Amino acid sequence: MPATNRQFHLAATPSGKLEESNFRLVEAPMPEPQDGEVLLRVHYISLDAANRAWMQSATYRSAVVAGELMAGGGLAEVIASKAPGFAEGDLVFADTGWQTYAALPARHLTKLPAIEPMTHLLSVFGVAGLTAYFGLLEIGNPQPGETVVVSAAAGSVGSIVGQIAKIKGCRVVGVAGGAEKCDWLTHELGFDAAVDYKSAPVFKALKAAAPQGIDVYFDNVGGDIFEACLFQMNNFGRIACCGAVSQYDGAPSPHGPRGVPGLIVVKRLTVRGFIVMDFYKQRDAALAQLQDWVRTGALKVHEDVIDGFENTPRALIGLLAGENRGKRMVKVS
Amino acid sequence: MPATNRQFHLAATPSGKLEESNFRLVEAPMPEPQDGEVLLRVHYISLDAANRAWMQSATYRSAVVAGELMAGGGLAEVIASKAPGFAEGDLVFADTGWQTYAALPARHLTKLPAIEPMTHLLSVFGVAGLTAYFGLLEIGNPQPGETVVVSAAAGSVGSIVGQIAKIKGCRVVGVAGGAEKCDWLTHELGFDAAVDYKSAPVFKALKAAAPQGIDVYFDNVGGDIFEACLFQMNNFGRIACCGAVSQYDGAPSPHGPRGVPGLIVVKRLTVRGFIVMDFYKQRDAALAQLQDWVRTGALKVHEDVIDGFENTPRALIGLLAGENRGKRMVKVS
Repeated sequence: MPATNRQFHLAATPSGKLEESNFRLVEAPMPEPQDGEVLLRVHYISLDAANRAWMQSATYRSAVVAGELMAGGGLAEVIASKAPGFAEGDLVFADTGWQTYAALPARHLTKLPAIEPMTHLLSVFGVAGLTAYFGLLEIGNPQPGETVVVSAAAGSVGSIVGQIAKIKGCRVVGVAGGAEKCDWLTHELGFDAAVDYKSAPVFKALKAAAPQGIDVYFDNVGGDIFEACLFQMNNFGRIACCGAVSQYDGAPSPHGPRGVPGLIVVKRLTVRGFIVMDFYKQRDAALAQLQDWVRTGALKVHEDVIDGFENTPRALIGLLAGENRGKRMVKVS
Repeated sequence: MPATNRQFHLAATPSGKLEESNFRLVEAPMPEPQDGEVLLRVHYISLDAANRAWMQSATYRSAVVAGELMAGGGLAEVIASKAPGFAEGDLVFADTGWQTYAALPARHLTKLPAIEPMTHLLSVFGVAGLTAYFGLLEIGNPQPGETVVVSAAAGSVGSIVGQIAKIKGCRVVGVAGGAEKCDWLTHELGFDAAVDYKSAPVFKALKAAAPQGIDVYFDNVGGDIFEACLFQMNNFGRIACCGAVSQYDGAPSPHGPRGVPGLIVVKRLTVRGFIVMDFYKQRDAALAQLQDWVRTGALKVHEDVIDGFENTPRALIGLLAGENRGKRMVKVS
């Protein structure tokens, strides 16, 4: 065990695009677990677009304030326990924050099974996979033959959403940035079509890719792409609102999408927001299904692992710029 | 029976606010029912904000085109029948259009019971009452103690929404234009509070009237009031999108409400559009409940009857300007 802990603090609340200077690498004393707590060694830190939203204001969690440890989910191993039910060697998921070691109360931990490779616990069997699963199936409720569109389609959630929609017999269109990602979606992941929002106006390209209109839109981005999809929804369509990454990094848009609420009425749409915790009770059944799909090869897992704790800020900045394919995480050591 | 029929045609598609010159009063031959049709004498013409939307473009129905008979719901009596199942004296609801007589296929008619006063068939037991009932109960799903906000609260639908929400044990806030209407909501209809959007910024006034936040918002207007409510919704709140009257008459807003979809995600809102036909199968049960509430006095019925067919255009223009309290209709003769 090293003598010191390494942490990234939020040095300053970003006022525009996130930069490395918004973070400060700090050496801190090794944390000591109190009664009811465990000491964790963090193996992998999960990077998520929502991390950026946390810096700006309270969301479904309190805001991360300048001067504090940066928050973030981590896959960690118990190395000392003062809590019943947890023993050395146990794997857990927790909001460890961006640090190499953490002491946390047992009630803040989710115990995880031993799975190979361990990284799947942060991707397809973690928040990303469960978010895709619940958002698509519980809110989108896709039926065979329907058209499903997903934005940020090459990302951790979107790449799984599209594959599950294919398993369910839908026509699947992904919206992503860049020809390479679009090729990857159609050639590697089996999407029926992909729209490159960087190369052409989205509305027209979507119309060509989804000629029967859109029945389910899984929204990860908000903004113009949300608006383009809204105008192409079919009657009784469903929009699962998972995130609004286009609004996280930089100045928030001064306006919302046109057609709200007029098109929602006329087309009788259901637009519903969610976060994965809302479906916690159904977690075990969902994981069993996801494991089955991965085992049979119906669902391919793509991960984007960045090596080295010191690269965590850069990894998040890159994620917000759309660098990653599949789930991005940092391998701490 | 007179020798001629009187009709209002849409003379020109309005490009801004609706004016009387957009209509033309036309004398037409008396219609003759064919086999399978009935001849109707129209007693009352229903005026609805949606009438204005129909002139602009296809909605849940095809657009009303310049030169054609203006569309609109009517309460009518069968005066001659060439259709099995319909006899002289039967009351029906149908899209008769703005005319004094109509010949329509039987399949386009909804037969109505004989109720006193007949006008209730267009208000509380008609589209307005059923729209309020289904939108509030099926989409809003209000629970005792929750806060319900309704816009266009003094209108045909809003005035019923608020009263049903009171019956369900909710705190009810109405948004309406003008102090008189607001007084009427609180003193006559039993609303807990009313916000006059013409006298003060809505956001602050709403905050005062709904200090615990909003659980259910029944939206009849869209635009700024929608946005103000969206920002004050509680987690897991429901927005029933019934209409967007602020957008119907005049140039449509170039932007949508801010906070879409970001706040929908963070607060896990459900925003759902509907029209009354979507709940047709549950109609009988709803009518029985509404009749019970009216009989016991739990639900007060307010109607705004304008006399004289020739006043129909003016009555609609006034409705769009917010003149009416409760359901507005024209008594044809």
